[in-house]
Amino acid sequence: MRIAISTGGGDAPGLNAVIRAAVLSAINRGWEVLGIKRGFAGLLGADEVIPMTKETVRGIGHQGGTILRTTNRGNPFCYPRRRTDGTVDEVDRSDEVIDNARERGISAIITIGGDGSLAIAQRLFEKGMQIIGVPKTIDNDVNGTITTFGFDTAVTTAIEAIDKLHTTAESHDRVLVLEVMGRNSGFIALHSGVAGSADVILMPEIPFHIDKVCEKIMARDRVGRHFSIVVVAEGAFPDGGEVHMIGESLPGQAKRVGGIADGLAREIQSRTGKECRSLVLGHLQRGGVPTGYDRLLAARFGGAAVRAVEEGKWGHMVALQSPHLVTVPIIDVLREPKRVDPMHDVVQTARSLGISFGD
Amino acid sequence: MRIAISTGGGDAPGLNAVIRAAVLSAINRGWEVLGIKRGFAGLLGADEVIPMTKETVRGIGHQGGTILRTTNRGNPFCYPRRRTDGTVDEVDRSDEVIDNARERGISAIITIGGDGSLAIAQRLFEKGMQIIGVPKTIDNDVNGTITTFGFDTAVTTAIEAIDKLHTTAESHDRVLVLEVMGRNSGFIALHSGVAGSADVILMPEIPFHIDKVCEKIMARDRVGRHFSIVVVAEGAFPDGGEVHMIGESLPGQAKRVGGIADGLAREIQSRTGKECRSLVLGHLQRGGVPTGYDRLLAARFGGAAVRAVEEGKWGHMVALQSPHLVTVPIIDVLREPKRVDPMHDVVQTARSLGISFGD
Amino acid sequence: MRIAISTGGGDAPGLNAVIRAAVLSAINRGWEVLGIKRGFAGLLGADEVIPMTKETVRGIGHQGGTILRTTNRGNPFCYPRRRTDGTVDEVDRSDEVIDNARERGISAIITIGGDGSLAIAQRLFEKGMQIIGVPKTIDNDVNGTITTFGFDTAVTTAIEAIDKLHTTAESHDRVLVLEVMGRNSGFIALHSGVAGSADVILMPEIPFHIDKVCEKIMARDRVGRHFSIVVVAEGAFPDGGEVHMIGESLPGQAKRVGGIADGLAREIQSRTGKECRSLVLGHLQRGGVPTGYDRLLAARFGGAAVRAVEEGKWGHMVALQSPHLVTVPIIDVLREPKRVDPMHDVVQTARSLGISFGD
Amino acid sequence: MRIAISTGGGDAPGLNAVIRAAVLSAINRGWEVLGIKRGFAGLLGADEVIPMTKETVRGIGHQGGTILRTTNRGNPFCYPRRRTDGTVDEVDRSDEVIDNARERGISAIITIGGDGSLAIAQRLFEKGMQIIGVPKTIDNDVNGTITTFGFDTAVTTAIEAIDKLHTTAESHDRVLVLEVMGRNSGFIALHSGVAGSADVILMPEIPFHIDKVCEKIMARDRVGRHFSIVVVAEGAFPDGGEVHMIGESLPGQAKRVGGIADGLAREIQSRTGKECRSLVLGHLQRGGVPTGYDRLLAARFGGAAVRAVEEGKWGHMVALQSPHLVTVPIIDVLREPKRVDPMHDVVQTARSLGISFGD
Repeated sequence: MRIAISTGGGDAPGLNAVIRAAVLSAINRGWEVLGIKRGFAGLLGADEVIPMTKETVRGIGHQGGTILRTTNRGNPFCYPRRRTDGTVDEVDRSDEVIDNARERGISAIITIGGDGSLAIAQRLFEKGMQIIGVPKTIDNDVNGTITTFGFDTAVTTAIEAIDKLHTTAESHDRVLVLEVMGRNSGFIALHSGVAGSADVILMPEIPFHIDKVCEKIMARDRVGRHFSIVVVAEGAFPDGGEVHMIGESLPGQAKRVGGIADGLAREIQSRTGKECRSLVLGHLQRGGVPTGYDRLLAARFGGAAVRAVEEGKWGHMVALQSPHLVTVPIIDVLREPKRVDPMHDVVQTARSLGISFGD
Repeated sequence: MRIAISTGGGDAPGLNAVIRAAVLSAINRGWEVLGIKRGFAGLLGADEVIPMTKETVRGIGHQGGTILRTTNRGNPFCYPRRRTDGTVDEVDRSDEVIDNARERGISAIITIGGDGSLAIAQRLFEKGMQIIGVPKTIDNDVNGTITTFGFDTAVTTAIEAIDKLHTTAESHDRVLVLEVMGRNSGFIALHSGVAGSADVILMPEIPFHIDKVCEKIMARDRVGRHFSIVVVAEGAFPDGGEVHMIGESLPGQAKRVGGIADGLAREIQSRTGKECRSLVLGHLQRGGVPTGYDRLLAARFGGAAVRAVEEGKWGHMVALQSPHLVTVPIIDVLREPKRVDPMHDVVQTARSLGISFGD
Repeated sequence: MRIAISTGGGDAPGLNAVIRAAVLSAINRGWEVLGIKRGFAGLLGADEVIPMTKETVRGIGHQGGTILRTTNRGNPFCYPRRRTDGTVDEVDRSDEVIDNARERGISAIITIGGDGSLAIAQRLFEKGMQIIGVPKTIDNDVNGTITTFGFDTAVTTAIEAIDKLHTTAESHDRVLVLEVMGRNSGFIALHSGVAGSADVILMPEIPFHIDKVCEKIMARDRVGRHFSIVVVAEGAFPDGGEVHMIGESLPGQAKRVGGIADGLAREIQSRTGKECRSLVLGHLQRGGVPTGYDRLLAARFGGAAVRAVEEGKWGHMVALQSPHLVTVPIIDVLREPKRVDPMHDVVQTARSLGISFGD
Repeated sequence: MRIAISTGGGDAPGLNAVIRAAVLSAINRGWEVLGIKRGFAGLLGADEVIPMTKETVRGIGHQGGTILRTTNRGNPFCYPRRRTDGTVDEVDRSDEVIDNARERGISAIITIGGDGSLAIAQRLFEKGMQIIGVPKTIDNDVNGTITTFGFDTAVTTAIEAIDKLHTTAESHDRVLVLEVMGRNSGFIALHSGVAGSADVILMPEIPFHIDKVCEKIMARDRVGRHFSIVVVAEGAFPDGGEVHMIGESLPGQAKRVGGIADGLAREIQSRTGKECRSLVLGHLQRGGVPTGYDRLLAARFGGAAVRAVEEGKWGHMVALQSPHLVTVPIIDVLREPKRVDPMHDVVQTARSLGISFGD
């Protein structure tokens, strides 16, 4: 039995712990393990497949990053091809990927990736490849699993940032706007905002009104709380009618370069007259040492993926449905990103705590 | 509407975050909140009931400990009474507790506590008191809820200890035995041991054979891994036939003072000839700043407890059944402690990783 | 004996620990202590002076921020005055400050502040006020003291950020530019860069050549290290001749808004063709819980300040000249900011490690 | 030019960072570097000398432990020899060490070690070996240097423990006794105790009276502070006349097994009637990831050691005399351990803060 492991997409704390657990679980079953670097397309190159031994994964369980790299070489179904005239088009090289895997004697592939990688996995599975998925998303926006490794670390990083901003905001009577990850889903903003005692949380699931945001800030000011912390997911956006109103500072997601935080901070400062600063956490949420929670969850995912191989659950993804790890068909989770339910108990509790969602 | 909050039993990271969330959620509903110090019996004294305001709970969300103290004054159903001849007996003062609450105009009590406090809560509920419980257990041994606040912090503390011991064990070719909490249940040992890459995990749910433990250590030694980390729950015990064999070093739980770790370390050293040291984490697992995960979970518990009051779910306890917070009847969780299922995926993954349970 | 304590300027981790140590040291000598909020000008208002007791400072030793606020009301020597026609000019209200202190029976003031606050302290001292200074600078740019509280925390925050960026940079083959504090001095950039294993460190003391920076990045690329970490102090600038060349991306300190990191990242990306991202740490370096080192140093500063009051060392500042705390005349430290000596052993070691300073 | 690096004695956070800095600094000078495992006696074995390359030290700067192991094989001047009759005696094999180094073409050795290793280094230097020392002591008890790497990490670990114990002690009205390292010197106890706001600090430099300790605890109790934290260095001892008095619980250093903390806790409990618990931090202080401060200091030591080789400062040790790294003759630092000066400003400040030293 020979299996291979690949990772795709962005970095996530815990990737190495998944790899380690999968490799050890497979080797301890007497299997051979290969590592495919840079996603599925690593199977198109000669030098991107390496043997994985106990030695390869020693001590990586608590290290950030991934020993298999994550920068994808490209999607094998529409792989970039440079033509002789210098232009570039795309070709379907998925058959090559499958052939290459067969030639190397790989009978199953465990792929750790987000929406994009899982979609590729599904198509390769439909063409007959024996694939098991492991969901990877910092934002926690993959359906079918309560959470994934890396999310707790990202939330923890955001909470630590809020804590640091809190003391400075309070000492200086300032409004601080912290932008966290979450293009489609506000999980990081919501969880870190509630745990870190933010005053305002803005997220894609609840379009906000800038005047409601400012109202909250001024209401605090009137009772002697001269500072406020606003946590905003990168994908948050103002409610329809206002897009034009705060136009230039919030020019719409497509063109936005520096993130929503800067525009929001300028707008709040101009409306409230209070000193307002912004900070974009960015890559700090992706990297670094995983939390204990994520180290365990990642190990569980890696172990469960090997059991799924053993049981031949091809086309399935391992998933957390607490307290159990289960498998779910990949096809079922691809429809749309998971989002925060605006009636979820965390949102209700946040409102009870006095946190404003700008709605 | 006037409610009261009490905490009972040992310290747990996140207690203050529960209190803060409950107090703010109640005050923002226009309710009054009292705090009862030192458990239910605080209602027997004159000076243990204090008003709780927004100011009282400001900034305590990320602080360890509890502003309401946790040392119980005693169980009101068998309260210690000092007689005139100096001897002490016990009397049932539960009616006084109920009367006292009524006189203070308290219409509902949120009690945060472990098995003991919840059992008292159930009996007071049966006598007509309007009570909502919030489970509190570092060991994660309360049924009905997937986990409770404080557990993630305790596991994280244990993982950090394992990480620190790892480098020293490896540099010095030593066997290190780390004793963690868990009288009835091995959750802390299991979770920290898997996340921290321990070599042996011993817990109450899987009685161990000392020779299996030593075998694992020597098997590692033979392949050049001259060190090992053993994580042992305080309630772990050797399998029947061996109790006598390792008698003096493991004299049975009842009489054990210094914990199981010392005896185990001595036994391993004498059997393997390898230098062996022990460490008892003890109180370090109870105290300190809660992790981000626990800060959020604690806030959710506090918020949900107030909603349960609103809905009149008397005699219920808030509980995590991911991804939702629910309520369950307290009576249903009191039967016996929650234990690790030896077939749970974490145990399976641990075995796949090569971790020995000494069985 | 009645003394007062004031803090001025920006937030710094450890401020509360200084305040706590000074208050307790004074009270335990039988003195009375007042706290002046918002800098010296707090003495011009009625409501900015509060009594300081043991209770006031309980448990604040490990908290970030300052219970005395730091936003200055203004410099009493050129205090803003709103005239009847609505325009604003400045007046010298220093005599009022001195009178106010005298009326309140304050015989000595301990002021915790940076260059600006120390300069005001010096002028008030010259007018007869009995003042002791405690240096406060995140950047470590105050002369006369080896380091100050808050600097170790800021460096630690920067190192943690580098660690996080490291794994992402390596996994994704990216160049990451991290901007840290240091307008005049590169201490944070240098210390965090060496401890965090940065590849390039840019700081005000060593003007850089952008082509040398790119050369280093490409040299790493050629030996298979496809990522690089650049740590840049906010006050770093390119060597003379090049200012024009990289003009628009680095438009000069005066007009720069978003910091040097963005322009630098764009320039590196356009010159090397490598994907390049930037991150500005900003306020994260100022806030939060002080490190153990800073907690101790802050307590030492607070204790020494009270001893300096006892000894009547007016016009002096407490200072660390390891292993001793000493006092130095404030006038001696005001001349110019402390800077990194380009021949210092840390710079030499950095060069030996292969770190480029872009020179 | 070919140099070798060895480490001896116990683990210390930062060892790997010293090794990394020395190896890179040497290789970047065009030198060859060997690593000697298990101390000087590693030169007596065939398999304990390994080549050190950039690859060998990649990414180890922030890892605890040492890639060169620290368990000494023995002192080459009195090396254990097993005789044919099974008994063991000791022989001087130092000439072999020197010959072996010469045969391998090693022209200089950088040795990282504590008192014991430095004493061996001095004797080898006197026999003509070209040796540079790097001081290593968790306890900070080596003379000639203000501090060494690892000490800040150990103090930080102790402070974190005190923080955790604080909340539990306060919630439960308990006295907690924390034993930290420091056989000869109380630096860890003093620094962590002041930074962590302990109530009592006991250390070898100030013999304590148990009644003074209890007096402090009861004085706190009387003003409503029903808990206390006692930090005790492992080498602390009661003042002469009392040794007998508290005899059995403190039976003298030689026979003491479980550390001083247990006996002290029992004694305090029996005298004050307050619930009292003890915790021995032990190995937790030696291991784990170094703090940012220690990572920088370790890098500086490694870089300075290579410069000392370049300058031929044989028989010298690198040392921190802030803000500079210097070299001092090893012979000058061997006389006796460095101790806390009871008049040092940290002790004075501690007393001002109300901390008792039991004297």
